[in-house]
Amino acid sequence: MSRERENIRRRGFSYERALVKKLWKHGFAAIRGPASGAKAREIVQPDVVAMKNGVILVFEVKSVKKSYAKLYINKSQVERLKEFASRASSYAFIAIKIRETKDWIFIPLDKLECTDKGNYKVDLTTTPYLNFNSIVRLADKETIRLDAFLKKRSG
Amino acid sequence: MSRERENIRRRGFSYERALVKKLWKHGFAAIRGPASGAKAREIVQPDVVAMKNGVILVFEVKSVKKSYAKLYINKSQVERLKEFASRASSYAFIAIKIRETKDWIFIPLDKLECTDKGNYKVDLTTTPYLNFNSIVRLADKETIRLDAFLKKRSG
Repeated sequence: MSRERENIRRRGFSYERALVKKLWKHGFAAIRGPASGAKAREIVQPDVVAMKNGVILVFEVKSVKKSYAKLYINKSQVERLKEFASRASSYAFIAIKIRETKDWIFIPLDKLECTDKGNYKVDLTTTPYLNFNSIVRLADKETIRLDAFLKKRSG
Repeated sequence: MSRERENIRRRGFSYERALVKKLWKHGFAAIRGPASGAKAREIVQPDVVAMKNGVILVFEVKSVKKSYAKLYINKSQVERLKEFASRASSYAFIAIKIRETKDWIFIPLDKLECTDKGNYKVDLTTTPYLNFNSIVRLADKETIRLDAFLKKRSG
């Protein structure tokens, strides 16, 4: 692995750990998946899983520099996360750390946009998202509909 | 780390992975915790977390050679697992791979025996346990009481 790739990998882990810590501080049981994956192709391991009051949240963690960035996500990564979330009866999000503002935003999988090639896309200026407080409240008030938390930015 | 210690560590991971695979085959979403822990003392990461039908199971994974072995578990390890399980509203078990028979058995935390020094002990000849099928059924029939599955061996 090149040094640059290794650095990106390490930075990724540090965001995953930061998210676990943040969720833990808000009363969640949170766990980071193994760095090496499950070593079994058929098994998906999300980056982070968090649980509270019977509500389960699973996250794939990404980071972008700017709050108006676009982000592309591999089709199979999303499909595998969906499979895990469905088995767990959980919500699933792409958790995005915006490095410039230090904010976390959370995109529900069904709000991802499709690309022509069948992959997925997040456009941070238009894709609806939840902020961290909404994620926390999701576990406190199970009956509230997810849509109530979604924020739509106008580009 | 000595080579022997490293080998024990690796063997531990392989049992964790095996348990994840076994749970996955039975319809669970299962995730292994990170090898390096959370890198934050206040945060516990169980070896394995499994979810199905809204039921959450957390596991600390051990292995013993013989089906009549005794096993000692550090107090803080149990306390931390309890904390995680309580936050997650989950069941918590010490999952034990018996290497000789290749069986898995599962000890609910409240069935662990206390030692004089405040640590915990499993005596495989007397401590009540669940087998793998019972673990699976636990998630299929949420309302069944855990005790219904407990098997007590007479030493």
